[in-house]
Amino acid sequence: MPQWKRQLHEVIYEADTPLGKIFDIGLLIVIIISVALVMMESVDTLLDKYAREFYIAEWIITIIFTIEYILRIISINKPKRYIFSFYGIVDLLSTLPSYIGFIFGGANLLFAIRALRLLRVFRVLKITRYIGESRRLMLALRNSRAKILVFLFAVVIICIIAGTLMHLIEGETGGFDNIPLSIYWCIVTLTTVGFGDIAPVTPLGRFIASFIMITGYGIIAVPTGIVTSEYGRATDKPIRNTQVCPNCNETRHLDNAQFCHRCGYLLNE
Amino acid sequence: MPQWKRQLHEVIYEADTPLGKIFDIGLLIVIIISVALVMMESVDTLLDKYAREFYIAEWIITIIFTIEYILRIISINKPKRYIFSFYGIVDLLSTLPSYIGFIFGGANLLFAIRALRLLRVFRVLKITRYIGESRRLMLALRNSRAKILVFLFAVVIICIIAGTLMHLIEGETGGFDNIPLSIYWCIVTLTTVGFGDIAPVTPLGRFIASFIMITGYGIIAVPTGIVTSEYGRATDKPIRNTQVCPNCNETRHLDNAQFCHRCGYLLNE
Amino acid sequence: MPQWKRQLHEVIYEADTPLGKIFDIGLLIVIIISVALVMMESVDTLLDKYAREFYIAEWIITIIFTIEYILRIISINKPKRYIFSFYGIVDLLSTLPSYIGFIFGGANLLFAIRALRLLRVFRVLKITRYIGESRRLMLALRNSRAKILVFLFAVVIICIIAGTLMHLIEGETGGFDNIPLSIYWCIVTLTTVGFGDIAPVTPLGRFIASFIMITGYGIIAVPTGIVTSEYGRATDKPIRNTQVCPNCNETRHLDNAQFCHRCGYLLNE
Amino acid sequence: MPQWKRQLHEVIYEADTPLGKIFDIGLLIVIIISVALVMMESVDTLLDKYAREFYIAEWIITIIFTIEYILRIISINKPKRYIFSFYGIVDLLSTLPSYIGFIFGGANLLFAIRALRLLRVFRVLKITRYIGESRRLMLALRNSRAKILVFLFAVVIICIIAGTLMHLIEGETGGFDNIPLSIYWCIVTLTTVGFGDIAPVTPLGRFIASFIMITGYGIIAVPTGIVTSEYGRATDKPIRNTQVCPNCNETRHLDNAQFCHRCGYLLNE
Repeated sequence: MPQWKRQLHEVIYEADTPLGKIFDIGLLIVIIISVALVMMESVDTLLDKYAREFYIAEWIITIIFTIEYILRIISINKPKRYIFSFYGIVDLLSTLPSYIGFIFGGANLLFAIRALRLLRVFRVLKITRYIGESRRLMLALRNSRAKILVFLFAVVIICIIAGTLMHLIEGETGGFDNIPLSIYWCIVTLTTVGFGDIAPVTPLGRFIASFIMITGYGIIAVPTGIVTSEYGRATDKPIRNTQVCPNCNETRHLDNAQFCHRCGYLLNE
Repeated sequence: MPQWKRQLHEVIYEADTPLGKIFDIGLLIVIIISVALVMMESVDTLLDKYAREFYIAEWIITIIFTIEYILRIISINKPKRYIFSFYGIVDLLSTLPSYIGFIFGGANLLFAIRALRLLRVFRVLKITRYIGESRRLMLALRNSRAKILVFLFAVVIICIIAGTLMHLIEGETGGFDNIPLSIYWCIVTLTTVGFGDIAPVTPLGRFIASFIMITGYGIIAVPTGIVTSEYGRATDKPIRNTQVCPNCNETRHLDNAQFCHRCGYLLNE
Repeated sequence: MPQWKRQLHEVIYEADTPLGKIFDIGLLIVIIISVALVMMESVDTLLDKYAREFYIAEWIITIIFTIEYILRIISINKPKRYIFSFYGIVDLLSTLPSYIGFIFGGANLLFAIRALRLLRVFRVLKITRYIGESRRLMLALRNSRAKILVFLFAVVIICIIAGTLMHLIEGETGGFDNIPLSIYWCIVTLTTVGFGDIAPVTPLGRFIASFIMITGYGIIAVPTGIVTSEYGRATDKPIRNTQVCPNCNETRHLDNAQFCHRCGYLLNE
Repeated sequence: MPQWKRQLHEVIYEADTPLGKIFDIGLLIVIIISVALVMMESVDTLLDKYAREFYIAEWIITIIFTIEYILRIISINKPKRYIFSFYGIVDLLSTLPSYIGFIFGGANLLFAIRALRLLRVFRVLKITRYIGESRRLMLALRNSRAKILVFLFAVVIICIIAGTLMHLIEGETGGFDNIPLSIYWCIVTLTTVGFGDIAPVTPLGRFIASFIMITGYGIIAVPTGIVTSEYGRATDKPIRNTQVCPNCNETRHLDNAQFCHRCGYLLNE
């Protein structure tokens, strides 16, 4: 592996060196700008006024993302491992839609392009990789995932039963036209969101609704109890190391690792 | 007890053997489909379009549930213990309404039948029996049940007092027509649901409402504190054993149990 | 102190003997009926229909409460300690308004009487005295009271600042007519109630509102953390003893107490 | 440092002496009155009626605050450290706007003045300095700040992605006119506020909304778990000492400190 490739890999994939940090921050700024552009384009008044500026900015960002994508492929020994990884696909989907839009452009297709652009938002997710604190959070969440899913499953069942009941009691007077809609209302109520677009009007319906609300208020304690317990158990020392193997792109290495624990490649020369 | 009966019991009531797992998953799929059908039938546009398809699907599911119900009775030594258990009654109520509907069918009775069908939803509850994680959750909830009930009782008393007060302050201007309605509004507010169909309009009413909201926001901590404490105490090893006694249907057995701790029947031959 | 007085005291003030339990349950039922009557009377349609029945029921309940009040005074050595205690005043206020209503009756005064009746609701609070579990809850709440008040005080300050800001940004377009109203809206939003009768409409107002909501969602963790910590520390053995000193009405005694720790009076002969 | 200056410093900046306590309580009352006045002035009906009274009260409060500001500068050795501290700037901004308003007065400027007055509200924040309990709360919050920010950042990202999705699904039928508005709606929903001014109307939109709500209901456990863990670790003995160095205004001193740990100045003569 040539020296320039190794150095490029360190800059692009890691955040330990000054250059690597600058690269990450620069990329973060471009991503935030691109997301802001997608948002602003969706506002009709802004789109009418600055259509040309949006078009130019879109071109510039697309080119930056394309260069970054090519660099990521070049700087790694096994490009397939990057291309078919989650972030590899997200990176491709961040540039491809724009090119498709530019080639098959037209008033009708414009909306569809904007829809594809949405996926670029996922790029922002990469930032969390760089924040050490998030690792411990993720660990606590992963450990309590099964229990939270069981809990949320119970919540959904309560909503299905209560929703069917509310449909029978309220019927169409309160807007509980059908069971799926009533279940939607139950979820809105049990999670204590409470939009108010649908609300019970009969005394019995309101009585049942009170039960649903008190249940929702009482059982919110369950996921909290789980996460608190799991979080207390999670290790105190989050791994802040951002070392990435230039051969196979494995990201989790011990702080004093010299060789990749997965492919045996030398991490630092 | 003949060998085939014992094996049938194992397949139907337990989930330890491959066949038992397949049976449970198959049953789960049928239950989900039947629940989805009840939901879809309640949507008028779908009912008008696919009335015949719904009728046929209903027949098929009813027959499947009937066969399952008969098998459950056959494969157990003391059928009465199953028939009069909670799930036995739920199973009966999952099939009986359909037959009653088919026999005494008619436009007017159709709605009543659909109402009875609701109970089939409860069948879904059985799934939770098969998930090991839920046992520990249930244990923590059961241990903190008394405390949570005391807390919810206090919440209801606060709502009754605050509701009466709001009725006197707001009267009919803000929609607080009578005390039960005002109590309903208080529950909506204290549990932080907040539909907005009823909302205070007088300055004093809004001032009291602010107090109710801040109280609700502050005391939500109480059930959470209880569950967290109890959950931390709950045993770490949930019982994942699904062994069911073929004689008396007792479900809770120690992992290495050879005889039912209740009736002394041999569990595995 | 004569024997009959001591026994009467035990029946009325305590719940350790079978007779005492029957008395408490009977009283509880009467209280619930009286509260239900106050609620039902506030519903106009019910009042028009059953005005006479409500009047008779009111008389019966008032007489029961009056007899109970007299018995409570008779059965204690130092009646003043009961009369001027919190529950003594509540008991008096549960009967007096009815008599005043009956004497100075009239269409106009009817509403005022109903207002006074509200206080009878407080009688229900006495029930919680009889539930052992609530003691530990109260202890945890009392220990964390100071911290929760500091937290709620911080919440109120955030609401005042954010409310003033929202009034300046939104003005009267979004319904933020004046600062008190905007503060009310902030409390509604920060506590995640969200009625929706007032909602920001300007982009900047919505941006600030988003911050308020995320703050409210994030800091709800604070009271929870406090109560969980305090609850874990609260003693595991709640005092279930309902012994009340027949001389001075002191309620908190150790399980094996023979003499009142306050006045030295013999508790059980 | 003259004795009178040292004593004045103790009265104004500290709360250990009886005079210091009286000064703080008096100031607190004036602050509360001034905040109440700002609120009441914003209510049009009150402003029309009591315009002159508000004007006079404003003058009195401004003069009190001015005297306090001058005393604070006089009684300290290094006035610059106070003037450019957070509270020094807040104190200045509490008086300056009133003077500017009085000099450049006029109907049009009246609103702008009121806007500047808002900052006086921040003065209330100083009260929390005097409450010992708040220190431990602040410590727990400061320790969990990084983790809560990571969590809230994740919440914002979820809202951006879900908001874009909802805009594409619902479009303008449900009021999801553009992406920023849809993100605002997502924040309203995920934080379980739920105003209801914007609500999904399409079946698919409601399905996605259900997911957002259940997510919001489930992950509220995360900040709670963090704060509970951190709060449990925070030291049990909050520092109740209000000793302030008369030379450099450092506020955190150990209970038995004789010299300022920062500038070495003698704390008590």
